[in-house]
Amino acid sequence: MSSHADRLAALRAQLQSDRLDGFVVPLTDEHMSEYVGSYAQRLAWLTGFEGSAGTAVVLPEEAAIFTDGRYTVQVRAQVDGDHWSYQSIPDTSVAEWLQANAADGARIGYDPWLHTADWVKRAKKALAEKGAELIAVTRNPIDAVWADRPQPSTARLSVQGDAHAGRSSAAKRQEMADWLKEKKADAAVLSALESIAWTFNVRGTDVSHTPVALAFALVSDDGTADLFVASEKLGDDVRQHLGNGVRVHERADFEPFLKTLRGKSVVVDPQLAVAAIFETLEGAGAKVIAARDPSVLPRAIKNETEIAGHVAAQVRDGAAIVRFLRWLSIEAPKGGVTELSAAAKLQDFRAATGLLADLSFDTISGAGPNAALPHYRVSEESNRPLEMDSIYLVDSGGQYRDGTTDITRTVIVGTPTAEMKDRFTRVLKGNIAIDTALFPAGTRGVQLDTLARQFLWAAGVDYAHGTGHGVGAYLSVHEGPQRISPAGSSQAGGDEPLKPGMILSNEPGYYKTGDYGIRIENLILVVPREIAGAEKEMLGFETLTFAPIDRRLIDTDLLTGAERRWLNDYHARVVAVIGPELEGEDRAWLEAECAPL
Amino acid sequence: MSSHADRLAALRAQLQSDRLDGFVVPLTDEHMSEYVGSYAQRLAWLTGFEGSAGTAVVLPEEAAIFTDGRYTVQVRAQVDGDHWSYQSIPDTSVAEWLQANAADGARIGYDPWLHTADWVKRAKKALAEKGAELIAVTRNPIDAVWADRPQPSTARLSVQGDAHAGRSSAAKRQEMADWLKEKKADAAVLSALESIAWTFNVRGTDVSHTPVALAFALVSDDGTADLFVASEKLGDDVRQHLGNGVRVHERADFEPFLKTLRGKSVVVDPQLAVAAIFETLEGAGAKVIAARDPSVLPRAIKNETEIAGHVAAQVRDGAAIVRFLRWLSIEAPKGGVTELSAAAKLQDFRAATGLLADLSFDTISGAGPNAALPHYRVSEESNRPLEMDSIYLVDSGGQYRDGTTDITRTVIVGTPTAEMKDRFTRVLKGNIAIDTALFPAGTRGVQLDTLARQFLWAAGVDYAHGTGHGVGAYLSVHEGPQRISPAGSSQAGGDEPLKPGMILSNEPGYYKTGDYGIRIENLILVVPREIAGAEKEMLGFETLTFAPIDRRLIDTDLLTGAERRWLNDYHARVVAVIGPELEGEDRAWLEAECAPL
Repeated sequence: MSSHADRLAALRAQLQSDRLDGFVVPLTDEHMSEYVGSYAQRLAWLTGFEGSAGTAVVLPEEAAIFTDGRYTVQVRAQVDGDHWSYQSIPDTSVAEWLQANAADGARIGYDPWLHTADWVKRAKKALAEKGAELIAVTRNPIDAVWADRPQPSTARLSVQGDAHAGRSSAAKRQEMADWLKEKKADAAVLSALESIAWTFNVRGTDVSHTPVALAFALVSDDGTADLFVASEKLGDDVRQHLGNGVRVHERADFEPFLKTLRGKSVVVDPQLAVAAIFETLEGAGAKVIAARDPSVLPRAIKNETEIAGHVAAQVRDGAAIVRFLRWLSIEAPKGGVTELSAAAKLQDFRAATGLLADLSFDTISGAGPNAALPHYRVSEESNRPLEMDSIYLVDSGGQYRDGTTDITRTVIVGTPTAEMKDRFTRVLKGNIAIDTALFPAGTRGVQLDTLARQFLWAAGVDYAHGTGHGVGAYLSVHEGPQRISPAGSSQAGGDEPLKPGMILSNEPGYYKTGDYGIRIENLILVVPREIAGAEKEMLGFETLTFAPIDRRLIDTDLLTGAERRWLNDYHARVVAVIGPELEGEDRAWLEAECAPL
Repeated sequence: MSSHADRLAALRAQLQSDRLDGFVVPLTDEHMSEYVGSYAQRLAWLTGFEGSAGTAVVLPEEAAIFTDGRYTVQVRAQVDGDHWSYQSIPDTSVAEWLQANAADGARIGYDPWLHTADWVKRAKKALAEKGAELIAVTRNPIDAVWADRPQPSTARLSVQGDAHAGRSSAAKRQEMADWLKEKKADAAVLSALESIAWTFNVRGTDVSHTPVALAFALVSDDGTADLFVASEKLGDDVRQHLGNGVRVHERADFEPFLKTLRGKSVVVDPQLAVAAIFETLEGAGAKVIAARDPSVLPRAIKNETEIAGHVAAQVRDGAAIVRFLRWLSIEAPKGGVTELSAAAKLQDFRAATGLLADLSFDTISGAGPNAALPHYRVSEESNRPLEMDSIYLVDSGGQYRDGTTDITRTVIVGTPTAEMKDRFTRVLKGNIAIDTALFPAGTRGVQLDTLARQFLWAAGVDYAHGTGHGVGAYLSVHEGPQRISPAGSSQAGGDEPLKPGMILSNEPGYYKTGDYGIRIENLILVVPREIAGAEKEMLGFETLTFAPIDRRLIDTDLLTGAERRWLNDYHARVVAVIGPELEGEDRAWLEAECAPL
């Protein structure tokens, strides 16, 4: 097994052989996926860095690794500072660093299958100012020197039947075909794995935590489609399910197929599709229409079957959470529980349902000050015990065939301080404000975000993340296009109108660095609301997640009468919905936890 | 005096002579001003339309006038349907109509001094699809046939001294110069009249309701400037005030001067500057940097002197309003008051201060159902009496040398219905929510807008306008860049971060078509707020406007304890601030109106 220093040297030799003066190594795959299969983990192979986001740039003498604030400590622990310099995003971008460090006239390679067209444009511009060029490689030089590079997963796809999907793939494709005709386009490329899974009503296991399969597709304006997936991944059940309207090809045939589209108008999503797709189509004489992937909005609007499935998944998941919270309430004060052991126990409870396909993301299990890092991921090194008189925060979720869950609960082990109760209650008030919001059809998440923050703002504090993201239906736990987020947020989506059927998270929080963290998260569903005397079509949210909120952390003096009633009503619903799933002492415990304030 | 039909015929003859197949007639001036001097009122001269916004397009056989929803009735009353077709914005745009009605290959003229570059681009694109061209005229064909066309105002400029401006023009220009150097620009064009007035600390009377003078300017990167203004408008006082750093030219020399800027980099604001400025600079070989006019943001942030001036103007204006409201409370129930007589009386009270330079806009004086039209302008034809048991809404403001005011009060004559009280109180609650908002530095108006609407939304109703706009310092009553407005609003500015020193209106409302209208408007000032335990730089609003809010329209059961306290505290401040300005019965009346709920 080569050392990272050897690997860097081997890459440099390959670059020289390829007549390149440098190369960019992002952490993504051909689908711009949030989680990436091991075959695509080139950054980790090269540098040793195991965080979920980062980029490396290699020049003949210099090499730099770029990470954001979440990984300041981790990157220095995992990546050798003798060979790599540490760059902080967003202070220094790859383009800026190249501009400063690349030689004049340098040829810097990039893999056009691993970058968006937008990134390519910015990087080219930055390099042009040095007379340097950005060169698209036809073969990734890392792949040439990565001796034991894993293959992409060959796991078989499964069918997501109508009982869960609620709508046939043919119907979904026909709706897209109608849209394509309106746009005077012949076809649309689908390169995001969730788009393909949803459109074809299939699922896979090729990516951690998201049940999708590696594939590409094009949907045509007559409702038929071309699906590009490795043939060993298709069993007879899936082939039969796909039916005559879908022409199946090898995944490797996607690029050649694009080259046959001369004269066609093809929709490609500039936020989701990699540069190579644009470049191949344009080079082949196709007309590229840059527009949103036509599955994104329909996918966000859940149909009745998907909603019913989600509701069932929430009951199941909620029962597991309650069992876990009871276990925690007994064991944590004894002193033997750690972040890792708690997360493992929670996963056991979820698995015990017999229906857990996967976790929907790596559990955030944060005790004391660790919970003040919103993206904290526990490891052996960082693992803390849960201590008396400290807060424990757990943000977790499951993938079930009928739905994807995501919930955060914050509990006190022992006795909270007055400040903890003040902050927790302000977070709770913000969560209630979102949950009970009424707003006209057409309202966007950015218009609601402040309702979650206002009680923290009144105390001069805030939380440095969005209030809510979309959630998929046995798909990605982070699904666009809609968000509840502040104006000027780096993550787009706050300006997407909310529509009935969208599922979002509702997750305000408060983080006191070095001390504790609080987050209260439920999933909510956008629904129409009838209001007597209304003059507009009004919407609101239906709460989807049922689990007790820790009353010991509530300062009841800070709650209005309406908020107190909301909490009591919510807890009554928790008992009514989850109670029947529980036995004996679990049920009794739940009823006590949910007694009216 | 020619008829409008004659004028249309004369214009068509001129177009033929100019080898044009059509011409576009907007309602604006060379400065894209909101209000336009009579010399520029070509639309009214041609069509008879006297609304404040609209466009006409003339073809050899067809002619269309485009107006928005405010003027549906007015345009049909004022413009002859035998010669003109009525088009509704935004349903049909000028570009779309031209595309449908212009002949293939037609040459459609436009005056490049009366359209933004953005409009020109869109119109060219729309016409290109018919092989038609958009042709910039060097002389407006209307001017050739408008026999008695008024001259631009020759009224003299006045000096806005340091006692009101608080900062010298040289200091303002130096700050702009520093910014120009950062942007590697040689100069910036100022074409908006408020920009020029503010930058040079001068005022004028060339436009209704806004104390600005017709001029152009360029500010250079060394802090000097070129000012283009008709020489008869400059007295010795202004010439001396402008000083050595300002080179004075004739207004007509602006275009030739632009042509001398070959090789220079010049900042031009694409939202404010007309197409001719861009076209002239580009044609002359200058490099145009499209960026915001560098006076816009500094102008929005009032300095201590401007704030003190505004506070003084508000006291004076508030006293006039109180005297008017008392007069109204006595006279309206007697039955002899109309919208026109009330507006005239209010103007008298303002004028009686001896310091009113102008109204800041045409008073909106709406009785009963007229108030349900938010932009209602009373005329002899529409004038209604104030009737018993109906609502009267008056939105008005004054221009004083020390400040610009804008206030809306809604009062009941007689007895309100329960619904009127419910709606009024929800509007009041929204106003209070904005007034008392606390938010981190960097927050944008779009993030606060919902706080004003939430109580109306809870009843399934809303108002179809923004919540707040910026206000100038003895400048325009509608000043950018900031707004409190919904996401997706057609008026930009909701995404501008709010900063201490900005003055905004706070004016939620509710309009029941055919019945009544409600609006409650105060001006507010963005200020820093100290909060014990705060972790962020926090901001809030200081109320600037003091006048009683009609307690008879308040449903006190709908107010929370905190809102009730706010209203009582506010009314106590009204008495403390305005009371000393009043005499005898006016003062006693005010104290009664402001007694605690």
